[in-house]
Amino acid sequence: MRKTIHICSSFLLIVALFLADFSLAQTREKIDTAMVAKIKDEGMNRSQVMDILSMLTDIYGPRLTNSPNYRKAADYAKKTMEEWGLQNVHFDSWNEEFGRGWELKKFSLHSLEPAYFPMIAFPKAWSPSVKGTVQTEAIYLDIKNESDLDKYKGKLKGKIVLFSGPTPVEPGFKADAHRFADSTLLQMANARLPEEFPQRGGGRGFQGVRTALQLNYLKWELCRTEGAIAVLEASPNARLEDGTVLVSAATVPYSPDVPFDKRERVYSPNAPTILPQIVVSAEHYNRLYRQIQKGLPVKLELTLETAFTKAESGFNVIAEIPGTDLKDQVVMIGAHLDSWHSGTGATDNASGSAVCLEAIRILKKLGISPRRTIRIGLWGGEEQGLLGSRSYVKRIYGERLDVSAPYDSIKTTPAADKFSVYYNMDNGTGKFRGVYLQGNEAVMPIFREWLRPFEKMGASTLTLNNTGGTDHLSFDAIGLPGFQFIQDPIEYSTRTHHTSMDVYDKAIEADLKHNAVMMAVFAWLSANREEMIPRKK
Amino acid sequence: MRKTIHICSSFLLIVALFLADFSLAQTREKIDTAMVAKIKDEGMNRSQVMDILSMLTDIYGPRLTNSPNYRKAADYAKKTMEEWGLQNVHFDSWNEEFGRGWELKKFSLHSLEPAYFPMIAFPKAWSPSVKGTVQTEAIYLDIKNESDLDKYKGKLKGKIVLFSGPTPVEPGFKADAHRFADSTLLQMANARLPEEFPQRGGGRGFQGVRTALQLNYLKWELCRTEGAIAVLEASPNARLEDGTVLVSAATVPYSPDVPFDKRERVYSPNAPTILPQIVVSAEHYNRLYRQIQKGLPVKLELTLETAFTKAESGFNVIAEIPGTDLKDQVVMIGAHLDSWHSGTGATDNASGSAVCLEAIRILKKLGISPRRTIRIGLWGGEEQGLLGSRSYVKRIYGERLDVSAPYDSIKTTPAADKFSVYYNMDNGTGKFRGVYLQGNEAVMPIFREWLRPFEKMGASTLTLNNTGGTDHLSFDAIGLPGFQFIQDPIEYSTRTHHTSMDVYDKAIEADLKHNAVMMAVFAWLSANREEMIPRKK
Repeated sequence: MRKTIHICSSFLLIVALFLADFSLAQTREKIDTAMVAKIKDEGMNRSQVMDILSMLTDIYGPRLTNSPNYRKAADYAKKTMEEWGLQNVHFDSWNEEFGRGWELKKFSLHSLEPAYFPMIAFPKAWSPSVKGTVQTEAIYLDIKNESDLDKYKGKLKGKIVLFSGPTPVEPGFKADAHRFADSTLLQMANARLPEEFPQRGGGRGFQGVRTALQLNYLKWELCRTEGAIAVLEASPNARLEDGTVLVSAATVPYSPDVPFDKRERVYSPNAPTILPQIVVSAEHYNRLYRQIQKGLPVKLELTLETAFTKAESGFNVIAEIPGTDLKDQVVMIGAHLDSWHSGTGATDNASGSAVCLEAIRILKKLGISPRRTIRIGLWGGEEQGLLGSRSYVKRIYGERLDVSAPYDSIKTTPAADKFSVYYNMDNGTGKFRGVYLQGNEAVMPIFREWLRPFEKMGASTLTLNNTGGTDHLSFDAIGLPGFQFIQDPIEYSTRTHHTSMDVYDKAIEADLKHNAVMMAVFAWLSANREEMIPRKK
Repeated sequence: MRKTIHICSSFLLIVALFLADFSLAQTREKIDTAMVAKIKDEGMNRSQVMDILSMLTDIYGPRLTNSPNYRKAADYAKKTMEEWGLQNVHFDSWNEEFGRGWELKKFSLHSLEPAYFPMIAFPKAWSPSVKGTVQTEAIYLDIKNESDLDKYKGKLKGKIVLFSGPTPVEPGFKADAHRFADSTLLQMANARLPEEFPQRGGGRGFQGVRTALQLNYLKWELCRTEGAIAVLEASPNARLEDGTVLVSAATVPYSPDVPFDKRERVYSPNAPTILPQIVVSAEHYNRLYRQIQKGLPVKLELTLETAFTKAESGFNVIAEIPGTDLKDQVVMIGAHLDSWHSGTGATDNASGSAVCLEAIRILKKLGISPRRTIRIGLWGGEEQGLLGSRSYVKRIYGERLDVSAPYDSIKTTPAADKFSVYYNMDNGTGKFRGVYLQGNEAVMPIFREWLRPFEKMGASTLTLNNTGGTDHLSFDAIGLPGFQFIQDPIEYSTRTHHTSMDVYDKAIEADLKHNAVMMAVFAWLSANREEMIPRKK
């Protein structure tokens, strides 16, 4: 017996190896390497991604949702895609009111006394105007508890209020920009399947937070009822310095007692009247603060003219390359077109929009006919809560009726059964280094093969980790495969994200070309494989 | 014999060791450690250096030579030193005309078309005003050789000219700030005596440079004769980004044919009429450039109001703690008080001025009576060529008649024989790590001992290397001992030097305290040692 077994074992080993190889051959994803080479050639040698980026930023940036510039950028994207010969190019209305658009018409802030200097600052989005050019005193609101509020009664009328404390500024011992080290990518590669419902921290310190929120609300009310002319806040991020300001929407003050669903958004036509609000660079704000602390009268000159458009529905821009034998099935790429307003929204997210536009241009240019329809979605309202992509998914593919029970209450349309996959880009200018699988283990062997042409370009990491905060979540929320790529951070969280320095020059041409090629390859391979992309269990 | 010798050798060894020790005791510099401890205690625990810095920057900054703010800062320094009880506090007139002072009264620059945005920019010092607020087109001067000049004939009248090419912007993969690594300090410590006359590079490429200078001159002349309203240039430094602008004096265009001694300085009352000149942040300038390259009309709105004061002499601020038995002999500390104008001149050089003021405050506060007189000099006109310190040295101590033959033509006064040493600070906010010996080998054993109390604080490096570019050179030029400390670079060359971000928040409190203590200790030890500081051979 033993001997027979011994003889057989060699034979069985050979058979096993053969079968293993055969079985690998069966499951290994096929790649059309000739097509990948063509996409690389077009994307690397005749790229238009930087031209597109310049149009979206230098000419039509910033692109605040529903602002005149957002519309111009959408017009440009639509016209450009029509010129490329894409099909079904259209504005996709959300069919529900977003609110008012807004734009900055004129802004300047000068310190007049005790020393003249022009200030680096930027108004918050949807801030109202100040009538005329105003020269007035600046008052620092030194309020640590409710009893301090009385100190300012009768003292704020017609004044500009320094609302926040100073922002500590540190020397830049850490570089703004970096690429992921192998050790970080390895951690991602070795990540376990994420928990469906991550544990939240307990209620510790809740009462302290509530007291702070209530005091903050009372400070805002004080400024408003006392007739302050405008409110200044220091740019808040300790790493964003050198005059860079981080600015988003104006604050609509609410007491913590008001439930979130009873609060009006700042862009709502029903929003309460708010004060003009301006974020000042840390260095310049701190200077005013120190002048005031010395007891010196600080006088400022402010010009702030803003304009609102009428409240209406938001909209996305959609276009496609129609499929052939599987044309009812859809592969989608996308990025949000809207941005914040103090820069030109270059890395958040003209870069993603330009990469998707360039990817679909490359595919169209190659004259190919994909089996499935390849569609592009440029979303509005992402910065206000993924509004554009959520509306699109809800109208076309379905919704999750109970958001607290993620996958138990999903109601999808028949179209959802023919939706293969959505690829999103929205993490700055950085090079794609792989894909966040969003907990979808079944796509791992597929993407592993698809990354092969990009291994030598540094893009070979797959992680079961989730990444959040952008439009793939709208698809993921109803169980449709939706992915973001792993991107080198570059200066995203340290310099450009939602700041005045989110501008064209912060984009890296080589990285955006690489990303457009990868986006086109993933779209093409998804559109032509035998099966749709498998879904999460 | 052998045995005797053997016996004797032990005895001789002991004698030799005793003598060696005795001889060391003879040459080793004495330190009054109790006094050093008192200086450290006052400087570290009751420091006023940041308060002084805030006054010089937040309140009286920037301090362009002979500007109203320079005078205010000088008044503050004088008054403060008088309050501290210093003697002989006075303004030290150069007794020769510097030229006109200048200040910025109002500046703003907005892009109106094709997209509105407020621009980060700053006028060059001594730029003239633009009358009223002007809205006009911006023209990019695409001139590569003289034949291109004609293209712009008749096209610049009333226009704003983009004079320079765009500045490439790179992601910030290198940190702005760093401290010297041990390896760098070791290189300094191991430096050989510098050559008296360093070899200059040959004339290679001189013709090319001359052609470029001539073309540049013709471009300026074109703008002026064609009636352009103002000239914009991109902030030039590829490392200074994120909206930081590097700005110094306005250009007075001269053909390379005009010898340097025939050229008028921009602050001279005889300077030719020049155009208003503004430096724009690289990111914003590049945006305009790309808009224009797309063929889009770019419309800007410019307000620029500047004011000149009448031409008069420059002046320094001088004060002293009188000496006792050697009061005719002088130990000096100093720093330049003047600055460039787009920030508040914090690291260049309110930090040096604040450190010297704090050092002399500490010494005065301790109620000590130094043997030699300890004098402080706060210089004007450093940024225009060490004017204040050169004038002071020339009037009091002598001059080098032939600057091309450094030490052969020096003519000194009797006062120079009683001048011991000058210590300067002017390399930003960074911590003192040692001393540049300026080729003076004789001071090495002295300073080696004086650095002992600072060894554990990271300041123990002596280098024979020279350092240049600031006021110790005025003393060194006539053979008087003049030193600068080795300072950690921090963000000096990467972010703050001559830029809009040279502001208070860029100063590091711990470093300035350390420096003030060291400056006070070096002044004290110099004032009380038996001999004056030895001079270079």
